[in-house]
Amino acid sequence: MVIDGLQYANWSEKIFRQMREGGVDAVHVTIAYHEMFRETVANIEAWNRHFERFPDLIRHARTADDIRAAKADGVTAIVFGAQTPAPIEDDIGLVEILHTLGLRFMQLSYNNQSLLATGCYEAEDPGLTRMGREVVAEMNRVGLVVDMSHSAERSTLEAIEVSARPIAITHANPASWHPARRNKSDTVLRALAESGGMLGFSLYPHHLKGGSDCTLQGFCEMVARTAEIMGVERLGIGTDLCQDQPDSVVEWMRVGRWTKRVDYGEGSADAPGFPPMPDFFADNRDFPRLREGLRAVGFDAQEAAAIMGGNWLRFFEESFGARA
Amino acid sequence: MVIDGLQYANWSEKIFRQMREGGVDAVHVTIAYHEMFRETVANIEAWNRHFERFPDLIRHARTADDIRAAKADGVTAIVFGAQTPAPIEDDIGLVEILHTLGLRFMQLSYNNQSLLATGCYEAEDPGLTRMGREVVAEMNRVGLVVDMSHSAERSTLEAIEVSARPIAITHANPASWHPARRNKSDTVLRALAESGGMLGFSLYPHHLKGGSDCTLQGFCEMVARTAEIMGVERLGIGTDLCQDQPDSVVEWMRVGRWTKRVDYGEGSADAPGFPPMPDFFADNRDFPRLREGLRAVGFDAQEAAAIMGGNWLRFFEESFGARA
Repeated sequence: MVIDGLQYANWSEKIFRQMREGGVDAVHVTIAYHEMFRETVANIEAWNRHFERFPDLIRHARTADDIRAAKADGVTAIVFGAQTPAPIEDDIGLVEILHTLGLRFMQLSYNNQSLLATGCYEAEDPGLTRMGREVVAEMNRVGLVVDMSHSAERSTLEAIEVSARPIAITHANPASWHPARRNKSDTVLRALAESGGMLGFSLYPHHLKGGSDCTLQGFCEMVARTAEIMGVERLGIGTDLCQDQPDSVVEWMRVGRWTKRVDYGEGSADAPGFPPMPDFFADNRDFPRLREGLRAVGFDAQEAAAIMGGNWLRFFEESFGARA
Repeated sequence: MVIDGLQYANWSEKIFRQMREGGVDAVHVTIAYHEMFRETVANIEAWNRHFERFPDLIRHARTADDIRAAKADGVTAIVFGAQTPAPIEDDIGLVEILHTLGLRFMQLSYNNQSLLATGCYEAEDPGLTRMGREVVAEMNRVGLVVDMSHSAERSTLEAIEVSARPIAITHANPASWHPARRNKSDTVLRALAESGGMLGFSLYPHHLKGGSDCTLQGFCEMVARTAEIMGVERLGIGTDLCQDQPDSVVEWMRVGRWTKRVDYGEGSADAPGFPPMPDFFADNRDFPRLREGLRAVGFDAQEAAAIMGGNWLRFFEESFGARA
């Protein structure tokens, strides 16, 4: 089982075929950044068109069983997620509505303060808001996973504590390896692991030591060190692959509608666009190389299989249904 | 199995308890008249609150199997429908979105011309529009039933012809019995029956011969005459019960936002509000009387059971899933 914990590509038949070539069984895809509810629904409509057009390549998945069935049928399962809470607007009732429409992950904040929590670029982090606590409880009830990939430290620790079900950081790396604003402290990683949560390792160059020059061995040695902190069973991949996107899309991710100026986020005025991916991971066809890299740094076949997708599948099984 | 093919009550615990008292196993409830998409979603959110609050009385149903399971568990199954196509706005992609959210019936037009078809109060009826034909095909694909209760004659006949799956007139009576604008010609009833469609008999007084003074015997004799035209297996009940609604709601149904004046629809300036229900059917507790009335005019037990809900269940089974 090979599962990618996050992608936001410029979706096309080419990319869906590459998923099949790479043996990718399931992908958590971002369906919304700053899109409000109606715009998010339009994005789901676009996905419905993809599902109708490419039934031999992809299929919408709502459960771990859907993913197993897709794998058996030789198609890639697509799991929906949102990178900001904009899709629920100011309305807690939209949590269940979006879950019914297939949403399975939602970040409580993205770089900035949201109605729910604080993002990792704010100067101050007052933790989960009143609405944030209510929304986490509702997400727990229906089976929508709290994702804190772009959130600030205190908000993340409070989400881990307040959530009655394990949460995820779908795409980030340890800050102790590469101290990017988006990478996570060992304190967060330990609390995440102890609560049964999941970390997806990112291959986005800004999250990598050495950036685009990061090597497969360096990446996999970092995975091995993180396994010592969190345990193998808490680890997955979350490539953050943004394949074939124009630079205008990274600007939308960073700027949304919250400023009229340009915010470079993890980039800079000199490098405002998407950085080039590392040599060892250009697109979905490179998943087998990740498995080889994990084996080369000492993971056995079973451990590598767990990190490549088995752990995500177990987590999906526990997380996507209504609370017992 | 007792199924009501249409209600739009002012939903409350009282009414849900009356459904249980009346032995009502499933109800097709109207969740939208002139509400556009976001407003319709807000109405679904309100239903989700009802489902969460009254799990011992009601449950959302998406399939015939859901209805059987609800009956086995002693709760009333709720099936969503829309009385106008306003919820899909101008966007065919919303057909699948609303089906995913549970919508199982949608009228193509309501009294007036819509983007899809003509309503029964228009002077001219040019039949299904270009978009109407596209939307019918999409409804057929996903399993959303075409309902022509408030549509005009030609549009209705064209919907029957164009739809690849049987359609429904969820709440109306034969015009030959009571020539109201909302009741249907024998031509329509014959075409509906021949295509495998369903008619739900209305108990809304404006659709009844004698109005609020209509008797149970008179109503059931009308059902028997319609069985001669359509066959017993094409018949069900669709009470159009609007219990506990203030008169402002009947004004919303008739006027929506399409005029700044008052339109009295089936009412009049002298009688602008909801007419009193006939003595023999005040609310959900009176369903057993309908069955007795059907037996009294000569239907055998099996026929009465089919009309009281068995036929709707078979129709739901055939209609609510994706097209094979």
